[in-house]
Amino acid sequence: MKQYILNDFALDNDSLKLGETIFHNANGYLGVRGSFEEGYPEGYDSVRGTYINGFYDFAAMPQAEKLYGLIEEKQTMLNVADTQGIVLWVDGERFSLFEGTVLDRTRCLDMEAGVTTREILWRSPSGRTVRISVKRMASFWLLPLFLAEYRVEAVDFSGEIRLCSSHRGDVRNYFDPKDPRVAGEAFRHLLVEKTEWEGDVSYITSVTSKSGLRAVSAVRNRLQAEHVQKTAVRTEDTVEERFSFPLKEKETAVLYKYTILCDSIRSGDVRGEAAKRMEQALSVDVEELYRRQREYLAGFWKNCAVEVEGDRDLNEALHYNMYQLIQSAGRDPYCNIAAKGLSGEGYEGHYFWDTEMYLQPFFILNEREISKNLIRNRYSILEHAKENARLLGHKKGAAFPWRTIMGKECSGYFPSGSAQYHISGDIAYAVVSYYLATRDLDLLEESGAEILLETARLWMDMGNYYQGKFHINAVTGPDEYTCLVNNNYYTNALAQHNLRWACKAVGLLEEAHRAGRVLEKTGITEKELEEFAQAAEAMYLPYDEELGINPQDDSFLQKAVWDIASIREEEKPLLLHYHPMYLYRYQICKQADTVLAHFILEDAQDLETIRRSFAYYEKVTTHDSSLSTCIYSIVAAKLGDMEKACRYFGESAKLDLFNTHKNTKDGIHTANMGGTYMAVVYGFGGLRIKESGLYLHPRIPGQWTAYRFRFRYEDAVAEVSVDKSGCTISLLEGNPKEIHVYGRECRLEAEREIRVTQ
Amino acid sequence: MKQYILNDFALDNDSLKLGETIFHNANGYLGVRGSFEEGYPEGYDSVRGTYINGFYDFAAMPQAEKLYGLIEEKQTMLNVADTQGIVLWVDGERFSLFEGTVLDRTRCLDMEAGVTTREILWRSPSGRTVRISVKRMASFWLLPLFLAEYRVEAVDFSGEIRLCSSHRGDVRNYFDPKDPRVAGEAFRHLLVEKTEWEGDVSYITSVTSKSGLRAVSAVRNRLQAEHVQKTAVRTEDTVEERFSFPLKEKETAVLYKYTILCDSIRSGDVRGEAAKRMEQALSVDVEELYRRQREYLAGFWKNCAVEVEGDRDLNEALHYNMYQLIQSAGRDPYCNIAAKGLSGEGYEGHYFWDTEMYLQPFFILNEREISKNLIRNRYSILEHAKENARLLGHKKGAAFPWRTIMGKECSGYFPSGSAQYHISGDIAYAVVSYYLATRDLDLLEESGAEILLETARLWMDMGNYYQGKFHINAVTGPDEYTCLVNNNYYTNALAQHNLRWACKAVGLLEEAHRAGRVLEKTGITEKELEEFAQAAEAMYLPYDEELGINPQDDSFLQKAVWDIASIREEEKPLLLHYHPMYLYRYQICKQADTVLAHFILEDAQDLETIRRSFAYYEKVTTHDSSLSTCIYSIVAAKLGDMEKACRYFGESAKLDLFNTHKNTKDGIHTANMGGTYMAVVYGFGGLRIKESGLYLHPRIPGQWTAYRFRFRYEDAVAEVSVDKSGCTISLLEGNPKEIHVYGRECRLEAEREIRVTQ
Repeated sequence: MKQYILNDFALDNDSLKLGETIFHNANGYLGVRGSFEEGYPEGYDSVRGTYINGFYDFAAMPQAEKLYGLIEEKQTMLNVADTQGIVLWVDGERFSLFEGTVLDRTRCLDMEAGVTTREILWRSPSGRTVRISVKRMASFWLLPLFLAEYRVEAVDFSGEIRLCSSHRGDVRNYFDPKDPRVAGEAFRHLLVEKTEWEGDVSYITSVTSKSGLRAVSAVRNRLQAEHVQKTAVRTEDTVEERFSFPLKEKETAVLYKYTILCDSIRSGDVRGEAAKRMEQALSVDVEELYRRQREYLAGFWKNCAVEVEGDRDLNEALHYNMYQLIQSAGRDPYCNIAAKGLSGEGYEGHYFWDTEMYLQPFFILNEREISKNLIRNRYSILEHAKENARLLGHKKGAAFPWRTIMGKECSGYFPSGSAQYHISGDIAYAVVSYYLATRDLDLLEESGAEILLETARLWMDMGNYYQGKFHINAVTGPDEYTCLVNNNYYTNALAQHNLRWACKAVGLLEEAHRAGRVLEKTGITEKELEEFAQAAEAMYLPYDEELGINPQDDSFLQKAVWDIASIREEEKPLLLHYHPMYLYRYQICKQADTVLAHFILEDAQDLETIRRSFAYYEKVTTHDSSLSTCIYSIVAAKLGDMEKACRYFGESAKLDLFNTHKNTKDGIHTANMGGTYMAVVYGFGGLRIKESGLYLHPRIPGQWTAYRFRFRYEDAVAEVSVDKSGCTISLLEGNPKEIHVYGRECRLEAEREIRVTQ
Repeated sequence: MKQYILNDFALDNDSLKLGETIFHNANGYLGVRGSFEEGYPEGYDSVRGTYINGFYDFAAMPQAEKLYGLIEEKQTMLNVADTQGIVLWVDGERFSLFEGTVLDRTRCLDMEAGVTTREILWRSPSGRTVRISVKRMASFWLLPLFLAEYRVEAVDFSGEIRLCSSHRGDVRNYFDPKDPRVAGEAFRHLLVEKTEWEGDVSYITSVTSKSGLRAVSAVRNRLQAEHVQKTAVRTEDTVEERFSFPLKEKETAVLYKYTILCDSIRSGDVRGEAAKRMEQALSVDVEELYRRQREYLAGFWKNCAVEVEGDRDLNEALHYNMYQLIQSAGRDPYCNIAAKGLSGEGYEGHYFWDTEMYLQPFFILNEREISKNLIRNRYSILEHAKENARLLGHKKGAAFPWRTIMGKECSGYFPSGSAQYHISGDIAYAVVSYYLATRDLDLLEESGAEILLETARLWMDMGNYYQGKFHINAVTGPDEYTCLVNNNYYTNALAQHNLRWACKAVGLLEEAHRAGRVLEKTGITEKELEEFAQAAEAMYLPYDEELGINPQDDSFLQKAVWDIASIREEEKPLLLHYHPMYLYRYQICKQADTVLAHFILEDAQDLETIRRSFAYYEKVTTHDSSLSTCIYSIVAAKLGDMEKACRYFGESAKLDLFNTHKNTKDGIHTANMGGTYMAVVYGFGGLRIKESGLYLHPRIPGQWTAYRFRFRYEDAVAEVSVDKSGCTISLLEGNPKEIHVYGRECRLEAEREIRVTQ
């Protein structure tokens, strides 16, 4: 059973916020933080947020000095409405965890049922005991629906119960008035246009201050109780329903609160759409809603089944992480996956390279429709990416924004923002990965090839030949402690891959007589393609003869080494204690950079180079980024160092559930969660999908007794089970396949398991 | 006669502002822009400013992304009061250049008298003609004094004259409400605390919003006329005196308006100080004030006499530039020389490296007290420079702020701000230059050696050894089109000089038994000095064998060359049309960088290397900075290319007076003005003062018939006259000297001119 149960967190500000993140409900379209329905006492501070993926406002982001091209307006994900509020009075005493006696309380995330629950046994100051059970669900079947089921049982008394269910449009994004650094953000982005009742449904229509978008929230309260007195209150921007009824000892009353969220990005008539969706939600019995939720998740867990035997905590963390991925991923081309999913306001709901390098690997192997949609979302902003390239000075090509919601760059500090040109290569890499795993020409024809060509054009405009080699200068690789360098190995290797695949994609489409669209759309010429191929061949990939490693960039090795052992606890993470320029002056890495390149493009160098590089960079990497340890785990596994692979994996897997970075309160770390998955399947499992086919090289950590995972490949679904003596591979669906296991060719056929020992 | 006369500028916004700059009055302490006393009609926009050197408020400068150590508060020079206003009514008709008939108008800057004048012959709409003569002076004798003399002659009528003389505290700095980029600055920094009368003097006391400084302006109107009726009006923040009197045909009335400005930086009892200074001003006859002004300037021109024969315009521009230097330079340790002097609000009154590298060369040779004071001002902010070093991560040493007023860094974009660490080397260089020209151990003992040691410590903390050489990474040299590079040649060469001279200074003081103070103050150890010496010897100075030049930095030569000829007019200057990162990717220089190093540290490389470097960098330099052409002129002269030297010199000399950069309206370019002087004396004159003595190598441009200049050297004053056949050098003051002329040793003695031919 995939459940995460907790005796709930402490009742201090940080723990409250952490709980809101850990127990948030989301379905890729909407996300609701796990705030207490009844709120918190005055003086407590939480992030009571409800979000729609891709719904944003523009916000001013003035630059301290105004240089040409610096970004001065960002997008920010909005808190759209507060429909969480349910306040309970027990015979005139208001329920609060901060008063009376809390006899018991637990919280649970049920990852098979797709709900969170909160169970409380509470005795009021005057001695009346109630059992409160709250169940919440962001529906996977009906994306605009968030459902809360609020049960109250009179345990040891008979008396009057009052429930106030609120629906508030007077919301704003989180800010801390005591912190002058964020006080500037105390801006109300969303203004209520209208509050109304239609039948038993209340509607709030709001409009953004600058982006001109509309959101409608609809709420319907269904109370199962008798002798109910009901009043409704409506103000300019809030609506509230108050229910009062008698409850006898041992009896239970239930309030079902339906929230529907719709937005003008996806619908022309938002208000009408909200009514339609509410009708749809109400047309189905609640139990049926729960059943459909289970059904969806059964399919999900069947696809991506990953089980580890021998480490219960780890298994739990793994499931938790995968569950967050399916909660976070956008399901339509209007959105993507935010760095914090839909769980909080950290990074303002922006989409980064995390999607392509840390999340797509999961979705490509498990949920292809989501994977395809993520590529379509990138394709939908291609014109913005071209404009961004022009802003950055380039005469041609597309430079995808480092961070964005609707396609325009939101990075306010370009040395570790727009300078990370590799994001364009990352997106191209995901297009290729999707193709290799599916051999699907449709997506290539429709959008993929165009992305490959426009990003290839960017590299051509950025680079220059020097002494016969193609150089790419003044960029930043993944490591944000080393900015604006020349010939970042990761970037150049990825650009090489990008340029090669731009040519290959055109070749594949031409072969299938399907190149017409992309040729016409891009106007690409034979000459350009030849130039791509030449640049790819001439790409400069820094290599240091003496150390036998790939230097991170041209000048990395000439810098002073920062002795990691000397870093004091209070200096961590370094970015919060050192001026960026000071960090740039050292051999010190925030995260995997060249080591990441050695994973994703492992054939660009021989194994011994990778081994030496790994050893070298390990000594200078702080892993201050949550995107790092999973990659170190994967490469350690590749190199056969299982002890290290396990250690790095453990750090990665438990990051959010055990709040090891101390900032999960701002939201989950989706990229790290994807990274955990990658560490199992690509790391321990040794899975690779290349032009030449599928490779597996399963290894098992010492502490584990066995583990297994499933994945899709072309038309097939396969399962890999690994134990101490080797691995068993079975084909669950699809046609037979030739695959490589431990370097040997094997034929995978239905109903004929392969057993391979290393 | 040193006069600059003009039939005044057109009456459009840009020309009005240009005129305000060109004809501003300043004396190093205060500056008043040359606005029309009578103001401009509604809708006209000017920068009506009065400034005190070093008087500032703090202003918020939020960063788009908040990284550790980024500066979020700057200082800004304030417009302190408006005492320029004198409005004239001629028989009820208000005088304005925008109405009636302007029969004649001229404006003049008399650089020997130290005054500006405005002469207007105006016929009112009803036909009354007046001659108005305004003379303005910022007194060099009494620095807090600004005097305006306003004469009105009734040319062809007898009638009633009214004069309104205003004194306003309700001032703010310039902003353009139509330009959203500066609208944020529409903040009133200075608030009036009190307006008052004491006898005939009005006082306005104002206090800054954040820096807690006070300024007092005092005004006294003395009218020479008969049958005067006077009224005085006082509001919360303004004071006005209105005079009404009859004037007969051909008669003249004169209003003397005295302004005194005092501030709490320099005085504990500002109000009392203002009264005392006003008394001092009034105690002297006006003619005597003018005489003392002339006397001061006679001394100035005697010292720094530079005369060119054969190019009248150029001579005029040269005099204009030198005059601006003496108007701009602070006279006490509370201030320095702003990039725009006291002539406007461009760069917010900040002090840059301009002082040391472009202005000190002039003052060291001509006005030693000012030179010494400029060093003392830097010394006064040494503790801030140490704090700045800590903020930048350095464990020791002093990093002088790239731009500042009171000592804290004001640079909002560090890649072309704080990253220009060379400013610390520049300040050290000025300390050494002052010493070499004066052999004055006093200044070294009192402050100079300490500056040298603390800046040397900075280089030690910044650099690291690599392959036996001392490297300095992640810095920006003078060229702001190439930022955050490794081993910038200019920076490294200057750091080498800094480290060497830190050791030498201690040696010199020890030899004279005067090292006690600096040793105690800095706690410098023998070991540190040895490390300085070692690092200096091991300093890595990039050299390219193939090209035989010094590359600007480690990676400059591997970048693509930007064909300067291809730059379209509408793309100039590049910084206003390209993202900084795009520029960083090219071999394109905003200004002299390595070429500047080849001038100031010419012995670090042989002449042929310098020649090849010059030729190389000339092809990739846009001179988008006003600090560039003068340096190219100097090095071209050194290389004997007089045609080029002249061309670059011409571009430099006429920049402000002919408004060639189109932005003189924001203020003069003091560094370029100093550069013009340097181009004559260091460029054509070939003057160098080195440890080994004084060198001259005069050359004469083809268009000139002769030129001459004077300079101080140790206890001497010398004059160099150059004509087509050679040069004559005479000792005007001081003891005999051994000097080098055209590489030959000569003895300079009193009353014995040396005549040398090349």
